[in-house]
Amino acid sequence: MTETTSPALRVALAYYHAWTSHDLDTAMSYIADDIVCDAPAGRLQGAAAYRGFMAPFTQILKRAELIAAFGGDDTAVIVYDTETVPVPSAPAAECVTVRDGKIVCSRFIFDRAPFDTARAAASATAPA
Amino acid sequence: MTETTSPALRVALAYYHAWTSHDLDTAMSYIADDIVCDAPAGRLQGAAAYRGFMAPFTQILKRAELIAAFGGDDTAVIVYDTETVPVPSAPAAECVTVRDGKIVCSRFIFDRAPFDTARAAASATAPA
Repeated sequence: MTETTSPALRVALAYYHAWTSHDLDTAMSYIADDIVCDAPAGRLQGAAAYRGFMAPFTQILKRAELIAAFGGDDTAVIVYDTETVPVPSAPAAECVTVRDGKIVCSRFIFDRAPFDTARAAASATAPA
Repeated sequence: MTETTSPALRVALAYYHAWTSHDLDTAMSYIADDIVCDAPAGRLQGAAAYRGFMAPFTQILKRAELIAAFGGDDTAVIVYDTETVPVPSAPAAECVTVRDGKIVCSRFIFDRAPFDTARAAASATAPA
C-alpha cells in the first residue's frame, strides 16, 4: 500500500513517515508555507500554525500504524491509528492537496473526545 | 472522483449516496450482516448495531458533501463533510473493506466533541 505512482500520495506518505518518526523538521519540509488546514478545533493558516498544532501531538505519540493510503495526481488520503500517552487508540484521517511537492491544503479528521476526557481526568487528579 | 473501476469504492459510494439521501434501507443493503465497525464510541458488531448507530445520524443530517473517494480491489476510503441540525460542519472519513459486494469492516472517524458540546448546550437551555 506504500508503493504508489501517485505524486500526491508519495508526498503524503513521506510527511506521515517523518512525523510519526518524531522528525518534525523533515515532516515540515513537505508542508507549504501557506498551508490551509481544517482541523477539528478550526482552521489553521500557515506553516507556523500547522507546526504549532503538530508539535504537541508528536510529543505524546508512542506509535502509529497506517491503515489505508490512496492518492491521485493532486490529492491523497491517509488513514492511520495512533497510540498516544493519554489515549491508547486515536485513529485519524488526513485528506491533502499537494502542489509542487508540498501539502497546500489539508483536512484533518480525528476524535477530540478521548483527549478531552483524558485532560479532564488529569486535571481532576492533579495536586491542588 | 465518483467514476471508478474499484469494486470496493463502487460499494462505498453506493452506500454513501443512499444514507446521505436518507435512504437507510438501501444503505443497509451494502452492509454485511456481520459487519465490524470501529467507531469513535467503540466497536459495533453486526448490522443491527450498525443501523442503530447510523439511524440517529441520518435523522439530523441536513446535507453531505463528498471531499475525496479512493479505492482498490477490497478497500476504499471516503471523506466527506456533513451539515447536521446541531453541528454545521462535521467532517468524517470511512475506511471500509468490501467482500461480495458488502461492507464487512469499517473504520469510522469523526470528531464527537462538537456533538458533545451541542448536547450539553441543549441540556443547559432545556426547560426544567
